[in-house]
Amino acid sequence: MPPTDRADVSIITLTTDFGTGSPYVAAMKGVILSINPAAAIVDITHDIRPQDIRHGAVVLGDVTGLFPDGTIHVAVVDPGVGTDRAIVYARIGTQDYVVPDNGLLGELLEKTPAARIVRIENRAFWREPVSNTFHGRDIMAPVAAHLSLGVAPEELGPAVESIHRLGLPRPRVRPGRIDGMILEVDSFGNLITNITADMLAGYPTDERVCIVCGIYETWGILSAYAQQHADMFIALVGSTGRLELALVAGNAAQRLGLQVGMPVTVAWN
Amino acid sequence: MPPTDRADVSIITLTTDFGTGSPYVAAMKGVILSINPAAAIVDITHDIRPQDIRHGAVVLGDVTGLFPDGTIHVAVVDPGVGTDRAIVYARIGTQDYVVPDNGLLGELLEKTPAARIVRIENRAFWREPVSNTFHGRDIMAPVAAHLSLGVAPEELGPAVESIHRLGLPRPRVRPGRIDGMILEVDSFGNLITNITADMLAGYPTDERVCIVCGIYETWGILSAYAQQHADMFIALVGSTGRLELALVAGNAAQRLGLQVGMPVTVAWN
Amino acid sequence: MPPTDRADVSIITLTTDFGTGSPYVAAMKGVILSINPAAAIVDITHDIRPQDIRHGAVVLGDVTGLFPDGTIHVAVVDPGVGTDRAIVYARIGTQDYVVPDNGLLGELLEKTPAARIVRIENRAFWREPVSNTFHGRDIMAPVAAHLSLGVAPEELGPAVESIHRLGLPRPRVRPGRIDGMILEVDSFGNLITNITADMLAGYPTDERVCIVCGIYETWGILSAYAQQHADMFIALVGSTGRLELALVAGNAAQRLGLQVGMPVTVAWN
Repeated sequence: MPPTDRADVSIITLTTDFGTGSPYVAAMKGVILSINPAAAIVDITHDIRPQDIRHGAVVLGDVTGLFPDGTIHVAVVDPGVGTDRAIVYARIGTQDYVVPDNGLLGELLEKTPAARIVRIENRAFWREPVSNTFHGRDIMAPVAAHLSLGVAPEELGPAVESIHRLGLPRPRVRPGRIDGMILEVDSFGNLITNITADMLAGYPTDERVCIVCGIYETWGILSAYAQQHADMFIALVGSTGRLELALVAGNAAQRLGLQVGMPVTVAWN
Repeated sequence: MPPTDRADVSIITLTTDFGTGSPYVAAMKGVILSINPAAAIVDITHDIRPQDIRHGAVVLGDVTGLFPDGTIHVAVVDPGVGTDRAIVYARIGTQDYVVPDNGLLGELLEKTPAARIVRIENRAFWREPVSNTFHGRDIMAPVAAHLSLGVAPEELGPAVESIHRLGLPRPRVRPGRIDGMILEVDSFGNLITNITADMLAGYPTDERVCIVCGIYETWGILSAYAQQHADMFIALVGSTGRLELALVAGNAAQRLGLQVGMPVTVAWN
Repeated sequence: MPPTDRADVSIITLTTDFGTGSPYVAAMKGVILSINPAAAIVDITHDIRPQDIRHGAVVLGDVTGLFPDGTIHVAVVDPGVGTDRAIVYARIGTQDYVVPDNGLLGELLEKTPAARIVRIENRAFWREPVSNTFHGRDIMAPVAAHLSLGVAPEELGPAVESIHRLGLPRPRVRPGRIDGMILEVDSFGNLITNITADMLAGYPTDERVCIVCGIYETWGILSAYAQQHADMFIALVGSTGRLELALVAGNAAQRLGLQVGMPVTVAWN
């Protein structure tokens, strides 16, 4: 990783379950800026559901690839803090990651293998004293800041071969039928499934396809919300390439009582 | 718009209804920074009520004029995404705007006409492929980033004469009486009306004026919250130049059950 | 304060009770950037409980010291806006503060006396006209921006000797027993007390110590959450050096009904 990667601007993103407005986030920013005052810090989200590694893995997988080459992504969803779980640096695609080794990079690694993994052990780049409860502030933030200044990953600790990969639920795909689930609910109440566009490829999207979730069903996969009237229950392929269920101009999650984890079936007649 | 406008620092603001903490916001930031890593991105708010164009128009009208000349404001409250509604660039006062053409600039245009309007059609400045559901990420973010690098608005598409203007509810103003409504509720529970200081000009502000909302009334228009005791129901002209109703040191919206859209009457004896 | 302090990057932090997503925050940012477009603005939090000066003082005390030397911290928790309460500049440690003189710096001043205090009176550095309800936008933001450009504090107004200090509740510490209270609840529902590590020093942390809050009790002070099983009620010293009570992998505040202000007793047998 040549230091020219980030010669002019050093971007560091943060993804945590601390909650928006948490002073813990500000603490990490203070530590980063104390080491590299010129770092540009971007919040990806701090609203990962508490200790929900799977949720963090999905957000990292969806969003981080949109950032410039050489962006450093720090993610702290860390129920194992204070145990002997490792903290790792990984290079995946054009991006750098600093995370607890607990599966947070699972979705990213489904698409692209890591080019390099380093187990972070060199305390020279940590903040002292290191607490037992907040490695985001004491290890991950300062390590990211030092990386942004050009420290080479191999200085952080020994290279390792593998990284923890969280088993995420995958749809069961058979000819003419896919059984998946609701993976996320967005701020509009749209229900985002783990069924992806490539699983739907080659099948008709007109009224021959039926999508069922709970007691609700809809026929056809639209290409835009506005193709139907307000309050219609619809299916479409959303902006992250996943099948979504939605109420046009309404909140499907609230009004229909559908939520993360509920099964979704797509079937063709 | 000479490129020297933003020679040293390029500021791009974001206003959306995605919800604070939404990964959709982070996606837009990633796209912007991938095109202009030096852009300074400022969140105005992501808590516009879902698909409430009027709410977005009020916030843009209140806040964006405070930013430096040449700031680029991107606003995504876009219920018509995927339809043939246009996306436009507009220059209003000293600021640049990139928005869906759905009325979001309505409050700004009440004060100042647009100096230039361009219909954004040149796909050279878009992200490909363009989704049907997220033009914030695929069109507005990259266009704003290119503008911040000095691309001239006329390169974005053809100049157009007019822009969609949302009819916002205006108070009925008669001699000695104004009939308005609650426009917004702020984080303190203060009730911000659509009655402005200029409508009150020339009238007494002492106990000869009575302000009524629902079953509550108060006499006189104060100049600061702290002029009355805690829990008193008061009226004053707030920081955006609008008449506000408030409970001193309390949350008027929650405690009195007053909300956006309720009528407010100001009458002089 | 030599201008070289912040020669290359000017960091200004914001701490308010406006609520995340409030346009009032964006207004302050617009004002700051209009004066110093190169300022790097960092949100500490906007979720201080409305008008809760004590809450603001705790957050400022915990977090601001982590920022680089010469960072300018603006805090707006200002129930006295529009009265004759002063606005002050203070230098504490290596950091600069611009706040209403209402006790917001109380926790910081417990640790370090102010090296300089200035009463902000010089309207040359304010935004005109100054509203009666939003001095954050009209006085504190522009003053901070001018400071970031190298304006010397003595230009802001006269030096003063003292500053308002809010009496924060301190634990009662006796041999073998400490009576404190819950000071904050974090986003995980962990209960952070006003009992600090130094008060516990010299005493055993094994099962000879009993911590009681409401009808709940636990023996021993752990060093990491993960030392106990899920759903166990535990005590440990958290990342800010305060005794915390928590449910392992759970939300203690919600599940046990414990909240800010409830008494916490630590006793040794």
